Amino acid sequence: MQHSSPQATVSGSLGIGMVGYAFMGRAHSQGWLGAREFFSPPLWPQLRTVAGRNRAGAQELADHFGWGGVTTDWQDLLSDDGIGLVDICTPGDTHAEIAIAALEAGRHVLVEKPMANTVAEAERMAAAAERAAARGQIAMVGFTYRRVPAVQLARQIVAEGKLGTIRLIRAEYLQDWLVDSAAPFTWRSDRELAGSGALGDIGAHAIDLAQFVSGELITEVSGLLDTAVATRTDAEGVAQEVTVDDTAAFLTRFQGGAVGNFTATRMATGRKNSLRLEISGELGAISFDLEDLNVLQLQDTSEGDRAGFRRIDVTEPSHRYLSGWWPPGHALGYQHGFTHQALDLLNGIAAGENPRPTFADALGVQRVLQSVEDSARDRSWVAVDQLARTDN
Amino acid sequence: MQHSSPQATVSGSLGIGMVGYAFMGRAHSQGWLGAREFFSPPLWPQLRTVAGRNRAGAQELADHFGWGGVTTDWQDLLSDDGIGLVDICTPGDTHAEIAIAALEAGRHVLVEKPMANTVAEAERMAAAAERAAARGQIAMVGFTYRRVPAVQLARQIVAEGKLGTIRLIRAEYLQDWLVDSAAPFTWRSDRELAGSGALGDIGAHAIDLAQFVSGELITEVSGLLDTAVATRTDAEGVAQEVTVDDTAAFLTRFQGGAVGNFTATRMATGRKNSLRLEISGELGAISFDLEDLNVLQLQDTSEGDRAGFRRIDVTEPSHRYLSGWWPPGHALGYQHGFTHQALDLLNGIAAGENPRPTFADALGVQRVLQSVEDSARDRSWVAVDQLARTDN
Amino acid sequence: MQHSSPQATVSGSLGIGMVGYAFMGRAHSQGWLGAREFFSPPLWPQLRTVAGRNRAGAQELADHFGWGGVTTDWQDLLSDDGIGLVDICTPGDTHAEIAIAALEAGRHVLVEKPMANTVAEAERMAAAAERAAARGQIAMVGFTYRRVPAVQLARQIVAEGKLGTIRLIRAEYLQDWLVDSAAPFTWRSDRELAGSGALGDIGAHAIDLAQFVSGELITEVSGLLDTAVATRTDAEGVAQEVTVDDTAAFLTRFQGGAVGNFTATRMATGRKNSLRLEISGELGAISFDLEDLNVLQLQDTSEGDRAGFRRIDVTEPSHRYLSGWWPPGHALGYQHGFTHQALDLLNGIAAGENPRPTFADALGVQRVLQSVEDSARDRSWVAVDQLARTDN
Amino acid sequence: MQHSSPQATVSGSLGIGMVGYAFMGRAHSQGWLGAREFFSPPLWPQLRTVAGRNRAGAQELADHFGWGGVTTDWQDLLSDDGIGLVDICTPGDTHAEIAIAALEAGRHVLVEKPMANTVAEAERMAAAAERAAARGQIAMVGFTYRRVPAVQLARQIVAEGKLGTIRLIRAEYLQDWLVDSAAPFTWRSDRELAGSGALGDIGAHAIDLAQFVSGELITEVSGLLDTAVATRTDAEGVAQEVTVDDTAAFLTRFQGGAVGNFTATRMATGRKNSLRLEISGELGAISFDLEDLNVLQLQDTSEGDRAGFRRIDVTEPSHRYLSGWWPPGHALGYQHGFTHQALDLLNGIAAGENPRPTFADALGVQRVLQSVEDSARDRSWVAVDQLARTDN
Repeated sequence: MQHSSPQATVSGSLGIGMVGYAFMGRAHSQGWLGAREFFSPPLWPQLRTVAGRNRAGAQELADHFGWGGVTTDWQDLLSDDGIGLVDICTPGDTHAEIAIAALEAGRHVLVEKPMANTVAEAERMAAAAERAAARGQIAMVGFTYRRVPAVQLARQIVAEGKLGTIRLIRAEYLQDWLVDSAAPFTWRSDRELAGSGALGDIGAHAIDLAQFVSGELITEVSGLLDTAVATRTDAEGVAQEVTVDDTAAFLTRFQGGAVGNFTATRMATGRKNSLRLEISGELGAISFDLEDLNVLQLQDTSEGDRAGFRRIDVTEPSHRYLSGWWPPGHALGYQHGFTHQALDLLNGIAAGENPRPTFADALGVQRVLQSVEDSARDRSWVAVDQLARTDN
Repeated sequence: MQHSSPQATVSGSLGIGMVGYAFMGRAHSQGWLGAREFFSPPLWPQLRTVAGRNRAGAQELADHFGWGGVTTDWQDLLSDDGIGLVDICTPGDTHAEIAIAALEAGRHVLVEKPMANTVAEAERMAAAAERAAARGQIAMVGFTYRRVPAVQLARQIVAEGKLGTIRLIRAEYLQDWLVDSAAPFTWRSDRELAGSGALGDIGAHAIDLAQFVSGELITEVSGLLDTAVATRTDAEGVAQEVTVDDTAAFLTRFQGGAVGNFTATRMATGRKNSLRLEISGELGAISFDLEDLNVLQLQDTSEGDRAGFRRIDVTEPSHRYLSGWWPPGHALGYQHGFTHQALDLLNGIAAGENPRPTFADALGVQRVLQSVEDSARDRSWVAVDQLARTDN
Repeated sequence: MQHSSPQATVSGSLGIGMVGYAFMGRAHSQGWLGAREFFSPPLWPQLRTVAGRNRAGAQELADHFGWGGVTTDWQDLLSDDGIGLVDICTPGDTHAEIAIAALEAGRHVLVEKPMANTVAEAERMAAAAERAAARGQIAMVGFTYRRVPAVQLARQIVAEGKLGTIRLIRAEYLQDWLVDSAAPFTWRSDRELAGSGALGDIGAHAIDLAQFVSGELITEVSGLLDTAVATRTDAEGVAQEVTVDDTAAFLTRFQGGAVGNFTATRMATGRKNSLRLEISGELGAISFDLEDLNVLQLQDTSEGDRAGFRRIDVTEPSHRYLSGWWPPGHALGYQHGFTHQALDLLNGIAAGENPRPTFADALGVQRVLQSVEDSARDRSWVAVDQLARTDN
Repeated sequence: MQHSSPQATVSGSLGIGMVGYAFMGRAHSQGWLGAREFFSPPLWPQLRTVAGRNRAGAQELADHFGWGGVTTDWQDLLSDDGIGLVDICTPGDTHAEIAIAALEAGRHVLVEKPMANTVAEAERMAAAAERAAARGQIAMVGFTYRRVPAVQLARQIVAEGKLGTIRLIRAEYLQDWLVDSAAPFTWRSDRELAGSGALGDIGAHAIDLAQFVSGELITEVSGLLDTAVATRTDAEGVAQEVTVDDTAAFLTRFQGGAVGNFTATRMATGRKNSLRLEISGELGAISFDLEDLNVLQLQDTSEGDRAGFRRIDVTEPSHRYLSGWWPPGHALGYQHGFTHQALDLLNGIAAGENPRPTFADALGVQRVLQSVEDSARDRSWVAVDQLARTDN
């Protein structure tokens, strides 16, 4: 019998320090592990330290996933020379401070979406990332749905020109966990902490997905925000005002002229986690639904009276990321996007190329979100300049 | 062997005069015949005369469906005492004149949707219908999708309160026959003749369906109209400007507070005739798609962790209209809605009760359509008072 | 105003005499009418006489559909020179006598499926048809599902060789109207009247469809027949023994070597009328379900890692029979197959060409059915020679 | 900062020795890791040693998943006192030898399906497991599809009696990787190594699933085995005879009287990994498809004319295994069944209770497989006594 060190087959390693230990902390932890279990990244991710205000919670995560240690102060991560990347999984109101500090401390950064709670914060983050890029640092935002293999195939098909001129983009992110008036008040219904409701939490995904797959940016919006249940009871039994939207609906224009229509809602009874995107072009269409995430629907009008939406099971070895996984037809799930994200980030760092979405990309999404809020407040159309310079 | 007169088993008859002999003329003709073939209406519809400007076209329709005669002047129908109902299947710009004349001549009237090309016309028609009602005449508009059995079941479920408070209404009418830039210019792309494009042609159906099933009226709208292909070539090879929308998208509020989001388009590549409606309520949801018209999807949240959208095959004898048709699971199609419409109208005339949608109902839809146009032009929200008095 | 005779635009006419006035009588009546309403057949079908043992029932049908007269004796039809075709819609035990008499009386014949209750009857019918063919008469059996446009497209795709060598054919006909043990005893559960149960009633459709679309005949079978509920109560409250199968399952070989697997059942809870066929070939596959009858699923393996089942909406004008109907995406239903059947038969008679399925084709199906019964009884494989000579 | 030992929060640990390092080795490795990452098993699985004839291959697996060491001799595992469980992931022809040796050496055993290549081997294994059980050892077979949450829910619904008397069970396992005649010859097409083809490889899953969910055993079978492509070319370019089936189809009876119909095939063009099960009962039905593995379809006839197959998204925290994973609607994939299997086995070992499927359960499946082979060879029905005593 012969024992081995785990990273024997790879060339180097990267120490990871993660901030946050809840749902997203678990998703990211398995992502880092998955990247080394199922792929051979050029840098071997080492799960070094988890930072969390609640030591017991952080310790429990560390125990389950094999993180080397825990701390209650995220700034400890920046004084540990063994940590090359800071992975930020905390609520959005803390992202700017941690990300900017980490970048200024010379660390690569991965930050969960939404990038920030305000455009101002996002602009400062993007500026910090731009300065850090000059020093060779990488900064990326975690819109993991880009890394679903079926979404990658959709992007590739559009990029090949298979849809022709894009005419119409419809996107929905449908959940239903607030349908019940008796569902409790949590931080997610508090504007101070959450920034916005369905709009920022899931509408951000719909916007990023639509822009990523279409390759086009939104240039103006007209939106509506709705809070169907104005007051909810918190865990202590106290009635609290709901200060965020539970439904956001907005019309858009894309830079190439396409019309867009979006709905993001926590009020779509019976729809648990349905992120749907359909792009209609002159030559064809693609359709995707996260509730059936291994599938891409493709229509090719050149097939004439035998055309129709074709259900592609995106699980062949030739599909992106699939060579690391199982035989055709063996489904991937929600968590695999985090593994692919970790892999892409490790590859990017090794190659010195910043993977998309960059902080600048995510700032663009943030500006769309803000424009929807402005539009809803002013009951008017609002132009969006996603590429506006930031001089922070 | 014994010969019989066809209406032997029914109590009376109603002479029908129809104006128009194209697509809608055929649909209505089979509707009248179907009502007497598959049901036992209290009034036996007699296909008496078809009026059409093109005698050969009208004659061909008459030959195929057994209409008793043809005329090139619709006013002949009003001088024939044997005609009790005028059925108007012509383009929208002629509806007001014919309908008002027929009502003033004492005839019952059925008019195809859209009721008219302008709100002003619709208001005059509604006023005429109101006056005629006082004389016992019936006037109805042909939103036939109300008469799909699955739609009737949806309405019934909502009316029973099974969905609870309605939170969200999403409706789409998706077609793709203008996706190809080379598709020819026809009257449907000409504002003078068609009034509007996707909005009035199919958006009207989406609006009527959403209001009918939810039982709630739209109170304000914010919309966008788009013409993706600005110029098309007509049958003579002449380039013509497209003066109507090919996509209409609009956000709405309903009177009960629900948010609405609508898309009506001829640019949804690969979608041939998909009229979709999903209504999300606190206790459940219903979902319908005209491309699978025998099915209603129903979700009941009280089923807890065993809840889910249930695919109801609406072909049981106990479902509305089904007693006249085939055994369970034997599909009905597009045309059956016209049969049910004819049946409901015959029943209504016999009972002296005006079936919905009345001219007043359709005027409401017309006001929504106009408001969407106003909103798109002014890039603002527009209030809709569907119940506004008309003093024409 | 000018009145016209209904057949003015066609060249000749054909008098129809129909035997039977129940479910199938209605389906055939609308089929004859539909053929002349929506198409321009070379022979104009005249609905001359309905024969039925119950005069009131026959009269009611005649009134609804405009049959010229009724009789209680089907032999009256053979003495009426105005009747050129006898359409047989009675239960299967009467088919042979009526069909043979009609053929010998010089009439064209359409007979509902199942062609007969026994192979011996079917052989006599096929022999009579063969003799009649020599006199220019046409004889056809009513497997109407062949005339669903999506099925026609499936056949065409296979005939073009698009699937390559066929490897596997799976067919199911699933209904559930006998799931309830308390469902009443009717003639359909009585072997004397019905011949067999699910096997002959719906299994016959599955066999014909599989053979028609694949273009291959079944050469051997191994089957099982099951009666899950042995006793049911009839309308008089008397317990009766169920003497037919309610589930038939059978494995087959096709002449080209493909494996077949069939299930026909009235015990498939929740499946109302689902006739499913999937044919798997080396180059592609087709899949069809009668519960979604306007759709054909097509898979083309040459599309590599972008292959997938493509949902073709078979409602384009270029699809068979569709030029007579509605615009793309406007669904046809169950009954339209009967219209297409009437049309094909009228075309065949005018052209002097016997449309498929001929009596010889249907005899082949009957032999498969009998072989399944033999196999189930003997618990062994049974060879089927569908092309065996008949010397009756 | 404070470092922790990974198993700090659990009470004990269990050393795992795994034999095999290919596809199944990876699936099991992530299963063991997943059990400790996402759950809190009473025993902490330690990935101690991988045994594989090819050291480099074993070492690569060990590096990726963090196994402590490798060996080329599986018997080394039995001399390591730190190994409490032997996990067998090798081809079926080696299972009996390894499993029996491990049981006799006092180790718990997990063996991948198919349990063995012959009934004789399986009987010896079951006897060894019975002897080991008396010593408190656990032995389990890896039919992981039992551990898909939707399958667990299906089993629970049947066990609650919600379907009533079961009438019909239809199961299919559809793959298409041998459709292409040019697909290469591999060990899976060699009877010596693989035992059988589609039958044992995937038919075994269909049998186990149908029996597990229905709670009923198969009592007799009539089957057909087919090899559509008789010769294939191996990696060296040599033509080799295919000595196993690529399609197995069989009819069955279940102990409670239900009829069964099964197809397992590698020739279902376009179907990548579709394991389908539908169980039809007097009161309801369930339907499952592995290509949509987070969903269970449920029909409840008591809902009358509002009944229909209900699409349950089996991702609620209350569903089995889900408390360890993500929020509702966040899909699990293929690999999660291996995690659940590892968890159940760890729980079983800690509790001293042998989880199902036991070696005796899997021996029953093996007997069904053998009976299908016998039936196909003899072209006759074959009785199966799954509970027959084994006196090895």
